[in-house]
Amino acid sequence: MTIKVYLAGPEVFLPNARDQLDRKIALTRAAGLIPVSPGDFAVPPQPTKRQFGRAISEIDEKMMDSADAIIANLTPYHGVSADVGTCYELGYMCAQGKLAYGYTNVAAGMAARTSAHYGGDVFTDDNGRLRGRRDGLAVEDVDMADNLMLQGGIERRGGRLIVHDAAPGEIYTDTTAFEACLRLLAERR
Amino acid sequence: MTIKVYLAGPEVFLPNARDQLDRKIALTRAAGLIPVSPGDFAVPPQPTKRQFGRAISEIDEKMMDSADAIIANLTPYHGVSADVGTCYELGYMCAQGKLAYGYTNVAAGMAARTSAHYGGDVFTDDNGRLRGRRDGLAVEDVDMADNLMLQGGIERRGGRLIVHDAAPGEIYTDTTAFEACLRLLAERR
Repeated sequence: MTIKVYLAGPEVFLPNARDQLDRKIALTRAAGLIPVSPGDFAVPPQPTKRQFGRAISEIDEKMMDSADAIIANLTPYHGVSADVGTCYELGYMCAQGKLAYGYTNVAAGMAARTSAHYGGDVFTDDNGRLRGRRDGLAVEDVDMADNLMLQGGIERRGGRLIVHDAAPGEIYTDTTAFEACLRLLAERR
Repeated sequence: MTIKVYLAGPEVFLPNARDQLDRKIALTRAAGLIPVSPGDFAVPPQPTKRQFGRAISEIDEKMMDSADAIIANLTPYHGVSADVGTCYELGYMCAQGKLAYGYTNVAAGMAARTSAHYGGDVFTDDNGRLRGRRDGLAVEDVDMADNLMLQGGIERRGGRLIVHDAAPGEIYTDTTAFEACLRLLAERR
């Protein structure tokens, strides 16, 4: 059996998006897997921005429906956590019982990154729960790389979330962890 | 037919989580719908933090599997975009073809919030695409409240994403937009 894998991640937003997507596509083929990648299909012109956005949503969901697996790039994006579009896609594939892997290029875990978001100004409440001083919101602390629905969804289906410590300027381009996911997924054939 | 609705959102992290979850549960019942809410089931003790996280992931997915619909609180959380666990859950329900609604209590749209993330220091590239100066990442600008996979997934299934301008101190507790979603969902019976 050949495995068709949807390559989810925020690469579409990079200045060198096409190059980076092509690198991931080539690595996927080299691992003996069939890549399905956002950006593979041109979006037909639409009368409004909103309809353009919906058209991309439809194309991406159809690509996921055609795939057997997902590798989600969960590197933090515009905040503490992963790109939200990628998280939607991970849930979308997990609900269909497909093979799910993920990776992040930032080594600090969810609790450490959330504490850093508060500049370290966190406290332990009466129930032993860590919270940000500024707004009282809980710091999720279950020894995971990001929100437990993401990593829990992956691990409970036999997948893995690979954590890699990329150089600061390369967190969106380093493919070490992505390649580790490809190897693990190729073993599932 | 009665509709069972999963109440997704970052309320579980609030200092007054139980109160806020109970408010949403009561409002859901008052709208003639059956609420299913994170926190409804106690998590059995687990040997490790990681296993505790996985147990919550399993309980939440089972609750979603039992529900007919989702209302996702997509108010920005710890960054530009919505809580990533909620985004996973929205994708999870959309993949199952369930009814999907969402809301945010922050009126500024995705493009405005992302520009603010760059302190307004954005530029238009040679292809007419808006980008952050600091890292060159694209500012998504398709007239939506958050990433297009979220709002596209909701709208393409006949749902709505309600945008409400809550007072700054009440963005996680104001239920105006949530109640609007309840009314729209109740009409689908």
